Amino acid sequence: MEKLKQRILQDGRALDGGILKVDSFLNHQLDPNLMMEIARNFAVRLADKPINKIVTIEASGIAPAVMLGYVMQLPVVFVKKKAPLTMENMLVREVFSFTKNRVYTVSISQDFLTENDHVVFIDDFLANGNAARGIIDLCAQSGSTIEAMGFVIEKGFQKGGDALRAEGYDVVSLAIIDSLENNEIKFRE
Amino acid sequence: MEKLKQRILQDGRALDGGILKVDSFLNHQLDPNLMMEIARNFAVRLADKPINKIVTIEASGIAPAVMLGYVMQLPVVFVKKKAPLTMENMLVREVFSFTKNRVYTVSISQDFLTENDHVVFIDDFLANGNAARGIIDLCAQSGSTIEAMGFVIEKGFQKGGDALRAEGYDVVSLAIIDSLENNEIKFRE
Repeated sequence: MEKLKQRILQDGRALDGGILKVDSFLNHQLDPNLMMEIARNFAVRLADKPINKIVTIEASGIAPAVMLGYVMQLPVVFVKKKAPLTMENMLVREVFSFTKNRVYTVSISQDFLTENDHVVFIDDFLANGNAARGIIDLCAQSGSTIEAMGFVIEKGFQKGGDALRAEGYDVVSLAIIDSLENNEIKFRE
Repeated sequence: MEKLKQRILQDGRALDGGILKVDSFLNHQLDPNLMMEIARNFAVRLADKPINKIVTIEASGIAPAVMLGYVMQLPVVFVKKKAPLTMENMLVREVFSFTKNRVYTVSISQDFLTENDHVVFIDDFLANGNAARGIIDLCAQSGSTIEAMGFVIEKGFQKGGDALRAEGYDVVSLAIIDSLENNEIKFRE
């Protein structure tokens, strides 16, 4: 998605340690028009899939996911990043975050994810893919089917995307970054 | 907002202890069309305010806020509900949650909230108003001006809304609930 890449080059900052700061338009401040264009791009690339539900994860996945829900006219469920107060009717899984070097719990209600659901998982970033692994597990627990995964930005120099594709998942990334070395942003051709 | 009230009556559940469960359309699963209608209602009621920025708080405020940003063509910033890893350039405030009976930290970057900003704060629920108090403090720290606060649902039987109005804040609530007694949802006329 050319406009997204231009925005990343214009407003993103490559920091040491493979960190890409995009908090002026994607994960702290949000540009709603860009979110809508991101949603329209996802919608085009997901058009041939029998998707009936969008699953995302709080907090930065919610904005692109709800816009995609609006464009595709589908409900959105956001997975919570903490242990539920009661386990009643909740599917739960622990996830390790490399970025934050800690374990967190993801959870979703069985009321909103069932064996009848054909899911696209939407998130802002794909890096090592650990959040995606958590979602795969929650979908397996619920009996739902993952039709595709859509990421606004994929860090191609980390191995989450390659591993998911090798396992047969349809991974749609709107911008793939191959290197942040020397604080320079290089996209995959 | 009549459609919202109908939806609350249809899909909401009044639980003991003044709890209103609306997780099928507002704070776990999201109905994007309802989010857009909520945004359009807020936009009409905020039309006479010189607002240049929408501030919300993760996670359930993000969906209505980004839709409002799209309708009003304004940037959205979501306040984070945890202490920042570095304090560099972050405004921080502790907030007590009655619902969860614990203290949490809210934070926002000074890059995205400055003395030039005229803010509407958007959130899913107004109850005791403690999250709103946190936002008021962050805005005061930044020197920005709060023009209005918009809530999808206000629990009128708790005292946050009355107190904020008494202090002169322009509080816009799309549905005000006066009672959940006997597990029955009663709206304010």
